[in-house]
Amino acid sequence: MARVVIVGGGFGGLYAAKALGSFRIPFTLVDRRNFHLFQPLLYQVAVGGLSPGDITAPIRSVLSRYRDARVLQDEVVDVRPASHEVVLRSGIVLDYSTLIIATGSQTSYFGHADWKQHSSGLKSIEEALHIRQRVLGAFERAELEPHPAARALLLTFVVIGGGPTGVELAGAVGELARTTLKRDFRTFDPRSTRVILIEALDRLLPTFPPRLSQRAREALEALGVEVRLGTRVTGMGAAHITLTRHGGGHDEIGADTILWAAGVTSSPFAAKLAASFGVEQVSGGRIAVEPDLSIPGHPDVFVIGDLAHAMGPNHQPLPGLAPVSMQEGRYVARRIRGTARGAFRYRDKGQLAVIGRNRAVYDRGRIHLSGTMAWLLWVFVHIAYLIGFDNKLLVMVQWAVNYFTRKRGARLITFEPGPDA
Amino acid sequence: MARVVIVGGGFGGLYAAKALGSFRIPFTLVDRRNFHLFQPLLYQVAVGGLSPGDITAPIRSVLSRYRDARVLQDEVVDVRPASHEVVLRSGIVLDYSTLIIATGSQTSYFGHADWKQHSSGLKSIEEALHIRQRVLGAFERAELEPHPAARALLLTFVVIGGGPTGVELAGAVGELARTTLKRDFRTFDPRSTRVILIEALDRLLPTFPPRLSQRAREALEALGVEVRLGTRVTGMGAAHITLTRHGGGHDEIGADTILWAAGVTSSPFAAKLAASFGVEQVSGGRIAVEPDLSIPGHPDVFVIGDLAHAMGPNHQPLPGLAPVSMQEGRYVARRIRGTARGAFRYRDKGQLAVIGRNRAVYDRGRIHLSGTMAWLLWVFVHIAYLIGFDNKLLVMVQWAVNYFTRKRGARLITFEPGPDA
Repeated sequence: MARVVIVGGGFGGLYAAKALGSFRIPFTLVDRRNFHLFQPLLYQVAVGGLSPGDITAPIRSVLSRYRDARVLQDEVVDVRPASHEVVLRSGIVLDYSTLIIATGSQTSYFGHADWKQHSSGLKSIEEALHIRQRVLGAFERAELEPHPAARALLLTFVVIGGGPTGVELAGAVGELARTTLKRDFRTFDPRSTRVILIEALDRLLPTFPPRLSQRAREALEALGVEVRLGTRVTGMGAAHITLTRHGGGHDEIGADTILWAAGVTSSPFAAKLAASFGVEQVSGGRIAVEPDLSIPGHPDVFVIGDLAHAMGPNHQPLPGLAPVSMQEGRYVARRIRGTARGAFRYRDKGQLAVIGRNRAVYDRGRIHLSGTMAWLLWVFVHIAYLIGFDNKLLVMVQWAVNYFTRKRGARLITFEPGPDA
Repeated sequence: MARVVIVGGGFGGLYAAKALGSFRIPFTLVDRRNFHLFQPLLYQVAVGGLSPGDITAPIRSVLSRYRDARVLQDEVVDVRPASHEVVLRSGIVLDYSTLIIATGSQTSYFGHADWKQHSSGLKSIEEALHIRQRVLGAFERAELEPHPAARALLLTFVVIGGGPTGVELAGAVGELARTTLKRDFRTFDPRSTRVILIEALDRLLPTFPPRLSQRAREALEALGVEVRLGTRVTGMGAAHITLTRHGGGHDEIGADTILWAAGVTSSPFAAKLAASFGVEQVSGGRIAVEPDLSIPGHPDVFVIGDLAHAMGPNHQPLPGLAPVSMQEGRYVARRIRGTARGAFRYRDKGQLAVIGRNRAVYDRGRIHLSGTMAWLLWVFVHIAYLIGFDNKLLVMVQWAVNYFTRKRGARLITFEPGPDA
């Protein structure tokens, strides 16, 4: 009997698990958390458009229909390739015939560890709720602030990073200020809020065609977002950032809320993994894999998802996107069943980014869409891929309500769960 | 111009505010939190049936339609009756012509402060999420636990207090184990879970007629809940409680999860208030009020909701229930407008408690209902009183899904929002 162990219940791990389950191949999935997170909608939790429960699904419940599936909420602390074992924090030792590692990525400050205390990333539910605390809290404190200069600082939001996450976040904060909160304050007009999006390259969404980058910029500017291209962040403090423009010139922006969407790195487990298997980590801490996604020299160990440095058709590494992880997960499951023989090939279904209500951009080879059509496609795709029937229904209802009322229900600012809160 | 200041955005404060708003009387509402919480459904958040966002509404958004309404997320730290001022933590000083105090109640351990570290109360969103962490976490750890005795400890849940909150919580945990999680584990059968409900009096729901107390007990027992009446908690440790039975006899129960639904006391602000106005606190730390809900000697200061010790028709103090607070809030608003002249009179619309799917009890004078009819009434009343159109819709959808799938979507275990989580 195959003893497959999957580490991680994100897109890669969960899609591998579902495929193995449907093949009736027994497996054990280990994750530190008890839920799968639909990352592409995390920014909606950050701005109060959706609740954490809307975009998560209990891993245990998703896989409960597979009799031979076992789910452990635990953490892998060691891997022993010689004896084919993984060691869990609880002390449990699992032996594997095949190991699938899909531990994903986390927010990275690229050597600026001190920036972490001043800004908020967006990779986990906790980070999203932290952003919600900061953004909504800034508006609340602005209402109490009698000094105009201090209030302006509270009402300035900087988003760093012009990729899809940064664009979506900046658009959502812009929309929050311009429409959702429009009538909610008495001592200032929320439409005076400044949202500044910083990107080091000379256009937004650098993986999209230039025409769509331009469309995204126009859509953001229509929501009042200031877009600063060719600008790097070179310093950060409690309520300011220092910018260096391409070709020289410095600038400083005072802002109480700094959101970081400029990059991710592989999970800390990657270093342990690389050492255990005697391989090196490549860019972003990722593990370079063979064409069949196995670790060189270990045909029974697969690395998938954001952690894998797998090559695409143009000899470019595949990006850390949900569709890549899902396809890799399914491929590895088929490989274990013995029905996938060739190398992994990513089927590019295009890339999407959304900028507020009615505006998105979509690129798939020669197909470039922007505006309402792209937005409808975005809505459809995101609902279709949500795990769980009730999530689909709830998100549809919540979006319909948000769309028509232009309000956002999930605007509660919460703190640490616990008796002392 | 009337300068009305409302302290607290629970049922009392929010209903006073909505009434004042509709009368076009200007007011300022101060709350430490940015949201109103629909307390009666909090136990559903604790067991993952609903998300926090489903049962909360941003106070600011609820009141934004009233041009003369001002909402401050702040805390009252001092009251100065002589100068008619309240002082906020931010330093803002508000002067009032009329003051409405509705700061509510919180979990109380009645002098056993050390019990707080061993058990979880259910008065705030954070407490509900803490219970969710503990209850779902206990099942997760049981799956990892190889020793049967330790596993049994993890799968024993004690609920202390046989009032509506304790009955609802015990029923919900029983249902979670018997239906929702039924197929989710591999090393134990969740139906072997023990849920024990402890009540010091000789029947559950002591404010209901005895026949309904009996029905509630039967409904709980059908869900596998052990009901222990005439039993007091006399000691508590990290994983056990000591019980003393009515008429003598001791007992000890080992349980990893202890939930406290045995009582509340007034908010800490009550002591400050009593000292400022020179009045005494009565049972539960409450403030005794005049028949018009004002503080004796201070006709321009009203105390409403759980904080008020107001007398009902039978010379019994009114209970700390949402309908009492709502009616008191509306009454005080009418009094400020000058259209309520007599004493406050509570119109009893009956009391409801729910025990899982399809089972509830309802008592209103001579009308006693139990079973499906009472449950449908409970569903209808709770949806009708939820603040906000989108909350109503979302809760309806979530309940319909929970009802038909017998699953609960909001089962994610979350931790402190923040970059380090």
